[in-house]
Amino acid sequence: MRALYFDGQPAIKEVPRPEPGPGEVMVRVHLAGICGTDLQVLRGYHGFTGVMGHEFVGQVAGPEDSPWLGQRVAGEITIGCGTCDLCRRGLAGHCRERQVLGLKGRDGAFAPYLTLPAANLHAVDPEVPDVFAVFTEPLAAALQVLTAAPVSPAARVLVVGDGSLGLLISWVLVVNGAEVHLAGHHAEHLALARPRGVATFLSPDLPPGDYDIVVEASGSPSGLELALARVRPRGTVVMKSTYVGRYPLDPAALVVPEVSLVGCRCGPFAGALRLLKDGRVDPRPLIHRTFPLARGLEALAWAQRPGVLKVLLDCREAD
Amino acid sequence: MRALYFDGQPAIKEVPRPEPGPGEVMVRVHLAGICGTDLQVLRGYHGFTGVMGHEFVGQVAGPEDSPWLGQRVAGEITIGCGTCDLCRRGLAGHCRERQVLGLKGRDGAFAPYLTLPAANLHAVDPEVPDVFAVFTEPLAAALQVLTAAPVSPAARVLVVGDGSLGLLISWVLVVNGAEVHLAGHHAEHLALARPRGVATFLSPDLPPGDYDIVVEASGSPSGLELALARVRPRGTVVMKSTYVGRYPLDPAALVVPEVSLVGCRCGPFAGALRLLKDGRVDPRPLIHRTFPLARGLEALAWAQRPGVLKVLLDCREAD
Repeated sequence: MRALYFDGQPAIKEVPRPEPGPGEVMVRVHLAGICGTDLQVLRGYHGFTGVMGHEFVGQVAGPEDSPWLGQRVAGEITIGCGTCDLCRRGLAGHCRERQVLGLKGRDGAFAPYLTLPAANLHAVDPEVPDVFAVFTEPLAAALQVLTAAPVSPAARVLVVGDGSLGLLISWVLVVNGAEVHLAGHHAEHLALARPRGVATFLSPDLPPGDYDIVVEASGSPSGLELALARVRPRGTVVMKSTYVGRYPLDPAALVVPEVSLVGCRCGPFAGALRLLKDGRVDPRPLIHRTFPLARGLEALAWAQRPGVLKVLLDCREAD
Repeated sequence: MRALYFDGQPAIKEVPRPEPGPGEVMVRVHLAGICGTDLQVLRGYHGFTGVMGHEFVGQVAGPEDSPWLGQRVAGEITIGCGTCDLCRRGLAGHCRERQVLGLKGRDGAFAPYLTLPAANLHAVDPEVPDVFAVFTEPLAAALQVLTAAPVSPAARVLVVGDGSLGLLISWVLVVNGAEVHLAGHHAEHLALARPRGVATFLSPDLPPGDYDIVVEASGSPSGLELALARVRPRGTVVMKSTYVGRYPLDPAALVVPEVSLVGCRCGPFAGALRLLKDGRVDPRPLIHRTFPLARGLEALAWAQRPGVLKVLLDCREAD
């Protein structure tokens, strides 16, 4: 099969179709999403070599005796070893020997087929179209903010960063009645949040005032700087995004105002699928363009343009 | 009265006896403790000018019509303006216009007399000797760790730093059954924690393994480095100590393992006084030496010697 492969450079190349191991299934990929982390892979950030991609929706195509056969699915991307101390303590997502689909030790979703343990699968309801379901993974990541920092309906929350993740987070937080502000640099992205009840600001125009919770989803040092400047005493900064480099943290900026800085990564797929099914989250405005997998290099180039939100790959082989 | 005054340099000098304002009392100071923050004041860190000191026990000496008159007291050190948005939201301790006893805008405890709002006072039970009660403020700060990161009896906890605060924290955490390790650089300090059930290690000898919670109480970049290296995924680092300078934080070190970094400062005086009253915490082994206030400069010099724990000042005038 032909897949989007990274080995120092991205390329569309012929690779063997993966074979599911014990407890695994083979998934025929329908759609896959290009994520900021994939762009970091291109810069060598994760030292990954293999088929790229981890956001997908597809259909189980094997083995023949799998109870999942024919089921449309989304899939959690981390595979723990199952035997180490972290896996045994319920922290398989943090297993030191973990594989991560398209990011670490396991070929990913920018391909016609991928394999995953059946335990990683979540059934996608027939009512949920592929263009919704392909957002399950990023929407789950957005929902995890609610676990990292419980947001009360009385809270004032600032989301920093108007990329795809920041927008999803603002949509998710606003529905429980909290006052949600979104700060970013792209008026046309901010416009996607306003109709949903999010108050939006170009970052330089953010009005004065502090926030109970600030979610840093910009992946930039200036975003973290803004978050720490605007969180109230005893408030929480949720860090959703990483970037290459170090942030010069003043310890007194946390200790004196008793601020918490909470790292936050993957989230609950089941909750994301419920929101997508009920139409409470309609991610389609985030889709910038959809390319066939064969034009994957073009798709990666588009995804790197400033101001582009989600770029999708249609991975179904034209057979 | 003669007090230990800082104005670029510390000096014993004659200052006017303070007059209690509306709602305030005058306290005759019995004992006061020298804290790491006072040593930072000496280095100009807080830009403070005035009578130093914030850890104390004393007796209310005025005004004559105060219901507190004659009562032995400990006192919370922060005074909010009472009217700003933070004060009105229950965050008076973080009021932007706050005064802090001996640290910001208000003369402190290294003097025969100080003034505080009556609302800041906590009565000290007659059973609690002055040498216990003078530790109310630092013990309360240690107890605040339990609020910042609830420690279950099943938890593995590492306390980094074997100064007075680190020792108090280790003593407080160990009593609920948690497995508490203390890492430091002074064998003679670590020896004060061992008999209480704390497993102690010179930092280079800390055995491998991770911790649910790490409390950074060393006030050094290497302490924070150790804390972040040893906290488990989804664990919490409680930052109790500040230092001058910036820590080069790798955002991925928080986001990928979903670690929380929680700033933590002042704590519950009432709880501290209960522990001191019942003898559950006996702070006397922490006392290195007690100087009369007139020898305050010598006391400050002692407090800065490597390996010295708590130095006290006896502030009662020899009248």
